[in-house]
Parts: sequence; C-alpha cells; structure tokens
Amino acid sequence: MMTRSELVRQIQAKKSVLCVGLDPDLAKIPQHLLLEEDPIFAFNKAIIDATHEFAVAYKPNIAFYESLGVSGWTSLRKTLDYIPKECFTIADAKRGDIGNTSAMYARTFFFTYEFDSVTVNPYMGSDSVMPFLGFDGKWAIVLGLTSNPGAEDFQYFNSGEMHLYERVLDKLKGWGTEDNLMVVVGATRPTDLARIRERMPRHFFLVPGVGAQGGNLEDVLNMGWIEGEGGLLINASRSILYASEGKDFALAAREEARNVQEAMEAWMRAQ
Amino acid sequence: MMTRSELVRQIQAKKSVLCVGLDPDLAKIPQHLLLEEDPIFAFNKAIIDATHEFAVAYKPNIAFYESLGVSGWTSLRKTLDYIPKECFTIADAKRGDIGNTSAMYARTFFFTYEFDSVTVNPYMGSDSVMPFLGFDGKWAIVLGLTSNPGAEDFQYFNSGEMHLYERVLDKLKGWGTEDNLMVVVGATRPTDLARIRERMPRHFFLVPGVGAQGGNLEDVLNMGWIEGEGGLLINASRSILYASEGKDFALAAREEARNVQEAMEAWMRAQ
Repeated sequence: MMTRSELVRQIQAKKSVLCVGLDPDLAKIPQHLLLEEDPIFAFNKAIIDATHEFAVAYKPNIAFYESLGVSGWTSLRKTLDYIPKECFTIADAKRGDIGNTSAMYARTFFFTYEFDSVTVNPYMGSDSVMPFLGFDGKWAIVLGLTSNPGAEDFQYFNSGEMHLYERVLDKLKGWGTEDNLMVVVGATRPTDLARIRERMPRHFFLVPGVGAQGGNLEDVLNMGWIEGEGGLLINASRSILYASEGKDFALAAREEARNVQEAMEAWMRAQ
Repeated sequence: MMTRSELVRQIQAKKSVLCVGLDPDLAKIPQHLLLEEDPIFAFNKAIIDATHEFAVAYKPNIAFYESLGVSGWTSLRKTLDYIPKECFTIADAKRGDIGNTSAMYARTFFFTYEFDSVTVNPYMGSDSVMPFLGFDGKWAIVLGLTSNPGAEDFQYFNSGEMHLYERVLDKLKGWGTEDNLMVVVGATRPTDLARIRERMPRHFFLVPGVGAQGGNLEDVLNMGWIEGEGGLLINASRSILYASEGKDFALAAREEARNVQEAMEAWMRAQ
C-alpha cells in the first residue's frame, strides 16, 4: 500500500515521475536469458536493478505474464517481491465487470498479489469501478483517454455537450477521491491532456505513450504537472526494456531511464 | 475451436441455448468440498457432470480463478479439459488493451488455454478488439449493452443520433463477422434487446442476467431468437451453481438446468 503523500515524497526525492512498464516478451528479451531457469524474472530483475534509481513506479503488464500460464504468474510474483518497497506498483490489467466479479479482481491484485494499484476499464459503469475503491493505500487507475489509435472510436463519442471520456472523468470524480483514484490519460494527445487537467486539477494521471508510441515528454509535463506534487506517473515500456537487444540490455535500459529522469529533473528546475 | 455451424448443430440437438457460468466461490460452494484436494475443480466437475446434458456452453468467470493465484489457474485448466468437447467454451475475462497487449490476451485464452472464445471490452476501440479476430473457429464476444446497473452510466451516453452502445454495435459489424464475433447483451433490458436484434440480425448474442440478476427467459427468447439457428447463448451462473448449499448441490443444479432447458424447448416448439 502507498498513500498519496508517500508517493509525492518519493517523486520529490528522486526528482522523477518515471514509471517503467514491465512487458517482458520472450520473443524480444535478449536471447541469452532463455537459458535461465526463469527468463522473465531474470530479465525483470536486471531491468529493476538498472532503473530503480530513476523510477518511482513499476507497471507489470499482466497480459505478458498471463499468456505464459502458471509459470508467468510465478514470474510475476517474484518480480513484485523484487521491486523496491519505496516504488509504487501498478497491475496493468484493465479489469472491470459486474460488482461481485470486480470485487474478485480487486482481491486478486490488492491481496493475492500485493499491488498498490490496478488499471480499470470504466465501460460497465459505477458497480464495475466502485469495488476497487475503499482500500487504504490502494488505488484504482481508470481509463480516461487512452494513447492508442482506437481511442478515437468511442472515447471521443460526443453528446454535443461533451465527449464520452469527459463524461467518464466527471463520473469518476464522484466515485473516488484524489487519494484512491487515478486516471489513464495518453501522452499522444497533449491538448486534450491540458483540458483534462483543468477538469481534474488534483488527481494523479498515469500517462502512457511517451517513447515507442510517440508522445512528447515536455508536452506532458507542461500540460499535466501539479505544482509541488507532480501529479503524474509517466510510463515508458518498450523504449527502456528493449533499448538494446544484446547482453548490454540492462546498461542500455539504465541509460535510457537516466535520460528520461534527467529530462524530468531539468524540466522541474526550470519551473 | 468451434465454428458457427457446429454451435448451431449442438443447439438443435440439445434444444437448448443454455450457457452455464462457472463462478466457483470458495465462500459459497458446499463446505464439505473444502476437504477435497482441489475444491474448485471438484465443484466444477460435479456441476459439469450434472448439467452438460442441458447446456451448450460453459463460461468460466476468470476473476474467480485468478483471485486464487496459481492454484486457481490450475483448477481452470482442469475444468477446461473436463468440459465435453461438443460444448462451446467462453473465457469470461473482459479483456482489451492496445494492440500488442490484446494480442497477448488472445494468445492466453485461445492457445495457452484452449477456449473457443473470450469476452472483450470495447472501450479502447478498434486496435483493442481486432487482435481477437481472425483465428479460425475462435470468437471475440464483445460487450455491447451489459446487464448491470452501471450500464446506465456510459453505455446509454447519447450523441442525439444514438447511444454509445449502438455506436459500439455499428463499429463491431465492420470489424468482425457473424463467424468470429458475438456481442454481450444483458437480459435485464428486453426492449433494448429487440432493437439490438434489429441492428444486428445475424450475430450471436451472449445474454447474461437471467436468474440471479432478474432477467426473464421468455422475453429474451422472444426478442433475440434467430430462426433456425438460435443466435443466443443465455447464461445462468449463481441460480444453477448455488441452487442448493448442501451435499445435494449437484442434483439441485441439474434440476435447475433441466428446468431452464425444458422452458427453452417448450418455447421452441411453440414457434
């Protein structure tokens, strides 16, 4: 569990809002790791060792573990146990279902695995989101406006007064608080990000889409920053994990994470 | 894998469109089963033995397995292996993410586990749904209008021309075919179900909400039936699984499943 003030303290100490996405793909990790007993964990361990000085959060993408069956869940648990305790942990699972089922998903990620937070899909409405709220120091991170091309299909659906994603944000403000609910806002749509920050001035945003997906770091900081607190977790996955395909992958990941952290720190100093 | 014609043949043979939801909850299953080595599988095995004569499909609710950690996934695999081969299998997982991640989820449910289908959440749009399509005899079952109270929050969001869920249906018709895409339509909204059938005359609907959630079986058949093919999979979970809390649970489940099948057969004969 991690409270808002603990998260903020870490952001201030590390001068970083970097979240490292842990999407380990057996087809993409350096092939010498396939000789390890648990290649996924060996890869994650090296990445965590190389980046934790610069990152405030880690976000395992559950699909990449689940697809491996039981061994994937074992690798996930070892990874989670290995992440330094000061770092915020996100189960990127995009869950959401009727109330009794969402309650089971909350149990899975908050207690069976001890994540600080889980990403949630809002399509099914209040009773699909509420079961993730109300646990001390645990967070629901709900999809608002996502970074992918398909976001155009429904999230921009317009009532004349507002887009669907804006309706989602307005509802979320009534369901959760700034201490138990964050929102996913893609980095690939910076002008929308600014309008979303106006609409939700105090909530943390999880921002994917910097790096492989093409979003710009400075734009995100300019549009989404909350003074004194940060209010952002900016995720990079592939650009760090796969910075090199060779045996120097951890060193390359460290360089990439450090570059991102230094850019964040430089931006903070310039404010 | 199961093609549309194989599914239709089974519906015709069993005179049933019953899908049994497998949501095994350790707090609700008969307590004498807790002495078994694998209580979840022992429960599911008894339910499958008791109901497969009357059911054309089984729908494990993944949350209930996932919440138990590795042992839950082991119980799921044993359950899936035990379901008779003529029955259609649905991973009720409500997955959906950016393209590379949805592809991983498709791999999980279609190949790591060999489900015929998986439920998919459309909020993230085309690139979150498309990776589930295009596998022979495998199906995406995408949320349209759900049965829960929270469906009101966003699915009825209205552009003036149509509701969000209608926009979703229109898009889905362009993305998938009647042979690889089904839609979730809740039983609790029968007049909407009739309008959805007009909008999508040939697609199969997975219909939750009969039983514990209060939907009416005859309404669903009247509004959703496709002549000659059925075109429906009507799910019941709790009303069958927990028909009795005692040692006679399997017998009680069998009675409940038979009652539903007989009501379906009577309705078919009356057409």
